[in-house]
Amino acid sequence: MSILLPEKILFCEVGPRDGLQNEAAILPVERKIRLIEGAVDAGVKIIEIGSFVHPKAVPQMADTDEVARKIRRVKGVEYRALVANLKGVERALASRVTKVKLTVSASESHAKANLNRTPFELIEGFKRCVEFAGANGIEVSGAISTAFGCPFEGKVPPENVEEIALRLSGLGIRELSLSDTTGMANPRQVFELSTHMKQRFPLIRWFLHFHNTRGMALANMLAGLQAGVIRYDASLAGLGGCPFAPGASGNVASEDMLHMLHEMGIETGVDLDLMLALARELRKWVGHETDSSLLKAGPCCRITPHVPAVQVI
Amino acid sequence: MSILLPEKILFCEVGPRDGLQNEAAILPVERKIRLIEGAVDAGVKIIEIGSFVHPKAVPQMADTDEVARKIRRVKGVEYRALVANLKGVERALASRVTKVKLTVSASESHAKANLNRTPFELIEGFKRCVEFAGANGIEVSGAISTAFGCPFEGKVPPENVEEIALRLSGLGIRELSLSDTTGMANPRQVFELSTHMKQRFPLIRWFLHFHNTRGMALANMLAGLQAGVIRYDASLAGLGGCPFAPGASGNVASEDMLHMLHEMGIETGVDLDLMLALARELRKWVGHETDSSLLKAGPCCRITPHVPAVQVI
Repeated sequence: MSILLPEKILFCEVGPRDGLQNEAAILPVERKIRLIEGAVDAGVKIIEIGSFVHPKAVPQMADTDEVARKIRRVKGVEYRALVANLKGVERALASRVTKVKLTVSASESHAKANLNRTPFELIEGFKRCVEFAGANGIEVSGAISTAFGCPFEGKVPPENVEEIALRLSGLGIRELSLSDTTGMANPRQVFELSTHMKQRFPLIRWFLHFHNTRGMALANMLAGLQAGVIRYDASLAGLGGCPFAPGASGNVASEDMLHMLHEMGIETGVDLDLMLALARELRKWVGHETDSSLLKAGPCCRITPHVPAVQVI
Repeated sequence: MSILLPEKILFCEVGPRDGLQNEAAILPVERKIRLIEGAVDAGVKIIEIGSFVHPKAVPQMADTDEVARKIRRVKGVEYRALVANLKGVERALASRVTKVKLTVSASESHAKANLNRTPFELIEGFKRCVEFAGANGIEVSGAISTAFGCPFEGKVPPENVEEIALRLSGLGIRELSLSDTTGMANPRQVFELSTHMKQRFPLIRWFLHFHNTRGMALANMLAGLQAGVIRYDASLAGLGGCPFAPGASGNVASEDMLHMLHEMGIETGVDLDLMLALARELRKWVGHETDSSLLKAGPCCRITPHVPAVQVI
């Protein structure tokens, strides 16, 4: 008897954006480029290279234009950047970034604390972004943050998430992420919400984005896999976090996620050893310990590589 | 659509034994008593209070006899101690400990490195322990360590685990733990091995025991729950580890496990707040950071307690 899991998944590295945007130290452009190119060399096919937002709001990302222009582009790799408004999409276009991500919180309190607007007001403002992007050959992805829980409101009702998804898909967006911004999701909830959203929006390509704040990220991924979601974000070395959740740890570490997937015989197309080496380098650059189990203990199966039979769903 | 999970589980606190046996500092008897009584006050119904092994081998546990004699006993609570031989069972009897646990490794290299005996030789030696225990009203539990992976041999074949279980059950033991001693198990493997062992040995009460060395412990528990296993070990504050796995972190933290279970609406009978307070105290006593997400971030749902509908299996 086996557990039903996908044969392979699509892995998205968000370290250069979600990981670095919360760091006190700002990495120089050369290191950001090394990080992005290193991940792509390791086999990463989707990578969030930075964000085109106001440099005063997120100074760590002020040089995303330069990073985008200088990175060596590899065919077949999706270079994506976060944007918050039309200005951001214009910057993306100028830097030859052909995919942007628009984020909106499913929680009103979180949206207001973050951007002083309600979620629906924010989505209203996205219209011009999507139109401009479409007219200029830029693809648009959407992310629903605090989709599982909000540090101010607690559990977020699935109806709210569904309403946001409805409005985003109404703009023509065909790819959405359910983001557990402050690590409040649990596996049962992930399974239920993912299953529901997949059924309700069968044409949407769904991503899951977990923070490991309360240690549940990999369990949540397992639940997501069982719900048939095959796109996952993670951040090298486990960098990241949320300014609104004190003491909270960051994104689930890419190396921990890839390791678990490989141990279960699920293909990612990414070389774990190269990613581990990169995570080690990144940890040195940021100069502090991070929430990465693999950086501490190393992979478990150096002796007898074990590739169990996989189940196709 | 929902994920199938048990309605409630049995939680076993192993911190006083597995957690403390790897600490450089030896806690005084009074603090060990405070730890055990505190966990029981929080609702823990099964607790591993220490081990009756040679004090030179594990000096941290040398005072288990005194601890056992001095703790306030609560009716309905199972006080269990680890033993390695007949001498240990005799000490248990003298200290009024009515349940002992015998551990054997599923990996020959690990067994030899640990005790210089093969697994089968060890089990042969258990016979006298089980007979003496039975004659004196002491219940015997068994643990199969490195049941998923061994730091020397890599993945451990399920056949080996099955053979060990066969011999242990042949001695009359009716309760066994599959222990991931160095955090090498992955969820697919946990589901498959648990399911197989439950089917092969339907009269055995199965425990799962996970270390969080590579961040997979809670995902592994989720897989175990889905396989219908309802008994889980964990250690307060995430203390513990294995002397044979350098850099490896300890047992999965009790508070992280209980938190995830409660978030999923699974009953444990244990008060998370009391356990968290105890974990905080314990961390102070050992004097170093431990692998506990909850001690860093706190529980996620202080605002809107969310109790989802549960599914009975």
